[in-house]
Amino acid sequence: MAEEFAKGFATSYYDQFDRDRTGLATLYRDSSVLTFEGVQHVGVAAIVAKLKDLNERFSNVKHQVGVVDAQPTSTTPPGLFVLVTGLLIVDDGNPLQFSQAFHLIQEGENITVANDVFRLVYG
Amino acid sequence: MAEEFAKGFATSYYDQFDRDRTGLATLYRDSSVLTFEGVQHVGVAAIVAKLKDLNERFSNVKHQVGVVDAQPTSTTPPGLFVLVTGLLIVDDGNPLQFSQAFHLIQEGENITVANDVFRLVYG
Repeated sequence: MAEEFAKGFATSYYDQFDRDRTGLATLYRDSSVLTFEGVQHVGVAAIVAKLKDLNERFSNVKHQVGVVDAQPTSTTPPGLFVLVTGLLIVDDGNPLQFSQAFHLIQEGENITVANDVFRLVYG
Repeated sequence: MAEEFAKGFATSYYDQFDRDRTGLATLYRDSSVLTFEGVQHVGVAAIVAKLKDLNERFSNVKHQVGVVDAQPTSTTPPGLFVLVTGLLIVDDGNPLQFSQAFHLIQEGENITVANDVFRLVYG
């Protein structure tokens, strides 16, 4: 159940990322934290600014989701702890391995991203 | 602060793992969840059984921590959201890339592992 939900989340997230990253803004809140390649961005405004910056630097990005693992969290409010590994293809270059961990929390009917860490994994 | 703590945690965790995995038992609780290469183990007894099984199959394991990212969580009780990437060397074979995500929560004076996902990352 957690795994299925997380796989659906990952598919939607990367589809949106690869089409129009700024459309991810609705997933983040002012308490959300994104660490992208070691640099921390706190709150929806800073996170959207980072995503826009990526939009300007990389015109064509494609994620290929490899494996999605998910677990329910025991904290309040409830949520999901998710680790995605996969491949990232930037501007038709060689595929790069990435890992991205998400802490999703339930907010009424919505799922929001509370914590988000993205790292390229180099050989 | 979160980063420094998480780096210290990762160093201690993998030192203990590489010396005697069963010594990690004190970090887990009955609500803890470990997903190891896609298989979920819930609770300290199941997690320790998995670690013991690894002990029997791989005599000599060495983790080299690469990058540790950490963020505070906004849920209750408070904790840390951690992503580690690094290299794993098993029985003097070629290094394998791994990613491991931890959700650490504060329990009085102690830190416990609430969520733990380990994945080898293949090229």
